[in-house]
Amino acid sequence: MAKVGIVMGSDSDMPIMAKAAEILDKFGIDYEMRIISAHREPDVFFDYAKSAEEKGFKVIIAGAGKAAHLPGMCAAIFPMPVIGIPMKTSDLGGVDSLYSIVQMPSGIPVATVAINGGANAGILAAKILATSDPELLEKLKAYTEELKSQVVEKDEKLQETGYKNYAK
Amino acid sequence: MAKVGIVMGSDSDMPIMAKAAEILDKFGIDYEMRIISAHREPDVFFDYAKSAEEKGFKVIIAGAGKAAHLPGMCAAIFPMPVIGIPMKTSDLGGVDSLYSIVQMPSGIPVATVAINGGANAGILAAKILATSDPELLEKLKAYTEELKSQVVEKDEKLQETGYKNYAK
Amino acid sequence: MAKVGIVMGSDSDMPIMAKAAEILDKFGIDYEMRIISAHREPDVFFDYAKSAEEKGFKVIIAGAGKAAHLPGMCAAIFPMPVIGIPMKTSDLGGVDSLYSIVQMPSGIPVATVAINGGANAGILAAKILATSDPELLEKLKAYTEELKSQVVEKDEKLQETGYKNYAK
Amino acid sequence: MAKVGIVMGSDSDMPIMAKAAEILDKFGIDYEMRIISAHREPDVFFDYAKSAEEKGFKVIIAGAGKAAHLPGMCAAIFPMPVIGIPMKTSDLGGVDSLYSIVQMPSGIPVATVAINGGANAGILAAKILATSDPELLEKLKAYTEELKSQVVEKDEKLQETGYKNYAK
Amino acid sequence: MAKVGIVMGSDSDMPIMAKAAEILDKFGIDYEMRIISAHREPDVFFDYAKSAEEKGFKVIIAGAGKAAHLPGMCAAIFPMPVIGIPMKTSDLGGVDSLYSIVQMPSGIPVATVAINGGANAGILAAKILATSDPELLEKLKAYTEELKSQVVEKDEKLQETGYKNYAK
Amino acid sequence: MAKVGIVMGSDSDMPIMAKAAEILDKFGIDYEMRIISAHREPDVFFDYAKSAEEKGFKVIIAGAGKAAHLPGMCAAIFPMPVIGIPMKTSDLGGVDSLYSIVQMPSGIPVATVAINGGANAGILAAKILATSDPELLEKLKAYTEELKSQVVEKDEKLQETGYKNYAK
Amino acid sequence: MAKVGIVMGSDSDMPIMAKAAEILDKFGIDYEMRIISAHREPDVFFDYAKSAEEKGFKVIIAGAGKAAHLPGMCAAIFPMPVIGIPMKTSDLGGVDSLYSIVQMPSGIPVATVAINGGANAGILAAKILATSDPELLEKLKAYTEELKSQVVEKDEKLQETGYKNYAK
Amino acid sequence: MAKVGIVMGSDSDMPIMAKAAEILDKFGIDYEMRIISAHREPDVFFDYAKSAEEKGFKVIIAGAGKAAHLPGMCAAIFPMPVIGIPMKTSDLGGVDSLYSIVQMPSGIPVATVAINGGANAGILAAKILATSDPELLEKLKAYTEELKSQVVEKDEKLQETGYKNYAK
Repeated sequence: MAKVGIVMGSDSDMPIMAKAAEILDKFGIDYEMRIISAHREPDVFFDYAKSAEEKGFKVIIAGAGKAAHLPGMCAAIFPMPVIGIPMKTSDLGGVDSLYSIVQMPSGIPVATVAINGGANAGILAAKILATSDPELLEKLKAYTEELKSQVVEKDEKLQETGYKNYAK
Repeated sequence: MAKVGIVMGSDSDMPIMAKAAEILDKFGIDYEMRIISAHREPDVFFDYAKSAEEKGFKVIIAGAGKAAHLPGMCAAIFPMPVIGIPMKTSDLGGVDSLYSIVQMPSGIPVATVAINGGANAGILAAKILATSDPELLEKLKAYTEELKSQVVEKDEKLQETGYKNYAK
Repeated sequence: MAKVGIVMGSDSDMPIMAKAAEILDKFGIDYEMRIISAHREPDVFFDYAKSAEEKGFKVIIAGAGKAAHLPGMCAAIFPMPVIGIPMKTSDLGGVDSLYSIVQMPSGIPVATVAINGGANAGILAAKILATSDPELLEKLKAYTEELKSQVVEKDEKLQETGYKNYAK
Repeated sequence: MAKVGIVMGSDSDMPIMAKAAEILDKFGIDYEMRIISAHREPDVFFDYAKSAEEKGFKVIIAGAGKAAHLPGMCAAIFPMPVIGIPMKTSDLGGVDSLYSIVQMPSGIPVATVAINGGANAGILAAKILATSDPELLEKLKAYTEELKSQVVEKDEKLQETGYKNYAK
Repeated sequence: MAKVGIVMGSDSDMPIMAKAAEILDKFGIDYEMRIISAHREPDVFFDYAKSAEEKGFKVIIAGAGKAAHLPGMCAAIFPMPVIGIPMKTSDLGGVDSLYSIVQMPSGIPVATVAINGGANAGILAAKILATSDPELLEKLKAYTEELKSQVVEKDEKLQETGYKNYAK
Repeated sequence: MAKVGIVMGSDSDMPIMAKAAEILDKFGIDYEMRIISAHREPDVFFDYAKSAEEKGFKVIIAGAGKAAHLPGMCAAIFPMPVIGIPMKTSDLGGVDSLYSIVQMPSGIPVATVAINGGANAGILAAKILATSDPELLEKLKAYTEELKSQVVEKDEKLQETGYKNYAK
Repeated sequence: MAKVGIVMGSDSDMPIMAKAAEILDKFGIDYEMRIISAHREPDVFFDYAKSAEEKGFKVIIAGAGKAAHLPGMCAAIFPMPVIGIPMKTSDLGGVDSLYSIVQMPSGIPVATVAINGGANAGILAAKILATSDPELLEKLKAYTEELKSQVVEKDEKLQETGYKNYAK
Repeated sequence: MAKVGIVMGSDSDMPIMAKAAEILDKFGIDYEMRIISAHREPDVFFDYAKSAEEKGFKVIIAGAGKAAHLPGMCAAIFPMPVIGIPMKTSDLGGVDSLYSIVQMPSGIPVATVAINGGANAGILAAKILATSDPELLEKLKAYTEELKSQVVEKDEKLQETGYKNYAK
């Protein structure tokens, strides 16, 4: 049973949302990914958000760009955490998406991550589930070690080659 | 029968929304004013937006601040024009409200007016109705003349008093 | 007889303005498209704006970039709704165009759509005309259904292929 | 045993952080509130962040303003969710705090809420804990109903008094 | 005969425009000050801008706020320099006025000064006239010396009193 | 004898500054173009600015990017008008250059044109000189007619071809 | 002999510059404080900047607002570090001052601190001098301990009183 | 023994950090360059920052992007100057990095240079060391002369070729 819902309003958001899915895949967390538009099909959206709890979702990851209403409207209906991913936009760089997602009124929070922060949305969902799942928590700690090793390796390479010969 | 719906998500928006109502009063246009939150009572909101057409609304004026979703969600459901008023906010000045309202995705426009532009929202609603109401159009033209006279009067006063003695 | 005037100050705005025209074509709404600059030929512009009503226009769609005065100056003269499209700019992303169009003073509203929102300007014009044209309103509802179907199809494709194989 | 850590770098943030505490009080969630500066006492901060898990914390709520590093540095050390509250600032309105908190690099998310969003941080913490606490989830749903009632009441008052006599 | 036209769209701009007038008074430059709105009385405005040259104006100083079109429209009609003063606005601080005035398209420059820069607009007008008026140029140089003296005096006071006793 | 000084701090600004020169060439106005950096060679810069008047300059056009001090420092020394061109920047789009040039303190105005507004700087210089040169004023009016004709031609082409076949 | 020059362009910057002086007083560092305007008295400014080295200055702290050129022009002339303090501005919050100071071109750095960061400018000057002054370095470390103690005390007070009774 | 530490959180910052190293190479200043992430390996980072003084560092140059905490956290631990380089970001242009680095709270300054200002960070480090190293100070003055010569050469080339034939 899927514990996380991943939802986007347009398939143009797929490359970013895929990064969230990859993280959940990596941690072995079941999820359901959907393309549902709060603007273009409000009825479908309402049914989705209302049935999310009974489908077993504990977290929803919602990505949207520009006047990004999808995360906030999910948070208005779904009683557990909603994570919002503001999409980069070609004109305003994504500051429009960011403001539309993070500046929620009192009572209805959206847990907002960085612009185009697909991977971080997946990690945050895992961290939320890990509050009651010690095994997953261990996986997250191991992942953190992995991130450390990658930086250590790069530093070692730099010390060997020097910056002039360092090729990323 | 009300032709215009005025809706705000919070009564803190009342001073701005009242200016829209005053304009409609001035032009003798029937309206219904409501406080309905898309975030705090999505069911009430959905019923409101869905029944707006059959209640006879031709235009909805929706005001909201911060991550302002109310106008956009109205526009997702109501098939005729939705006018959005971005509220000034104490931290970002209202640029968050503006982006959340104006940057709507293709297919779902919101006719956005200036930050705190309550009066202009009322005038725009009247202009929309005037496309099929010659009498109202005449009233709008008279109103425009009124605006002109006010500026002319101020200029005359300036010519008389000079700028040093001009007290607004 | 054209019901909608489409006007731009420069032919560099054509790709965006064309999207508004395509929408009007789709809905069978007569329009007249012009290139007229309020800055470079103020006399031509004044004649245009002043004669718009008697030509039968019910709505004007005006697009402009940077210090975008065309929509606001149309709204100062034409008594019915003016829709403004802020053009994306290469340096400021279009926030200059947006502010120049949306922040109109009290009395002279411009119905502003998103940066580069050509299609939405066309749809908004149709929605305005639909307030007194039941047939057009039905077409708009059908169009909304079309938009829904497109999203539903994409979601179905995603469910079939999975996100790894989803090619937009 | 405290399940939530509330931490701020300066007591000037207290009025906002208090709102998070009030929400947790309301839901009967144990928490520990501290004033600890990552900049002024990095050793104290490191001990705090490292010992947070063994103290039983499931969530940390961290508030900070300007070049706000506290939430991000908590997220670098604590393996479960960190909620960041960007403080409004007197010069830039809080956009500096917001960017410093939300724009975290891949691997280290901070669940960011609105500028000055103290109450929402508390609610988000409760929602996170509710993913494994059905009783708390019921309380959250009841709280949501409460929010709805407040809006409904205001709307009823508006219908009775009319907007001219509506005093907030 | 007035050499400079000072024009504002609203008498709320008077305190800033007065500073331009005071500078012209100081330099003994004849000017005409008017309240004329390009938005509310486009006909009056057109007559004003068209007749400016034959009235003997060499420079126009135009102040406006928000979607500030007055300076740009003057520049579209009047063939000599137009100086634009962007007014500070209560919501966006005047960045809307600034962009609406300075970002003019190629062919139609507006000589833009700082937000609320009334005095500087007056000085710039004087500098423009001084390109062909050696006596005025001398006055401008004397004014510059005056400005220097004021700073020198303040520095002397600081050296005497020390910063702790320095009262502005 | 050159009447206009064109100065830039770096030859990377040449493509924009060249547009100013082309305008002056077009109007037959003598100018001197220099590369002088207020930051890298302050002595050379000071000599340049101080000797500008005696060389016969009536106007200086100064272009600069980022923390753009060149126009403002020219205005601090040269007693006649200085026109500032803010260069587009690769990171902030030129808003840094714009603020650094336009926000001058009281007493020292810079006549600021649009970001990358090289041609407009040239035209503004010509307009300034035209305040005492009727022949040049006629050339400017002819140029304005030229601009009009270009727009009229484009509009005629659009009426002939229709927007679908309109190729810029 | 003064090791630090503190310079501001206007005495309106005094309250912020005083904080830098207080820090230097606290650390027993000799300094000279001046009011000198690069814009209003360029000659005085040039003499100041050129003679700074021979007067024994090792660091200059320069504060300025709006189109803030003073720090950058100091850095163009003085061969050792220049610290820039961007002043908060009433319209743009100080983002204009910040960009004008920090965005210096390659070759001429200004060590920029926060908007209104007077105390931090003083501390940074002390840190620079401490690179060759072990005694001063010890004082800086003691100061850091002092800052820590202040936070620890506040936290202790919070633990005693609880947040509801915590009065700053 | 290295006098300067150069540290970046990610090797994607290498092209900018390399410019700082090139400057130090040019001036013959010993440095150590490391890739260390305050977010991904806080323990490694703490050891680095704590041992920096005893390794003989007098200055640390830290570069970071987005929610850039590395420079500020260095400044919280290392008692001598920390220079921060805000990295350009693909969505917000680097304004996020800039605010996260420059807006440090009172007590903990970071000497911030321009977005992507790698070379300027190196020069600023040299200027700091030159406060107690007369030989290095001479090298810096010679470098300044070099910069001057480059501009003079470009200007000479321009005078020879004219702007139309000037190829950068």
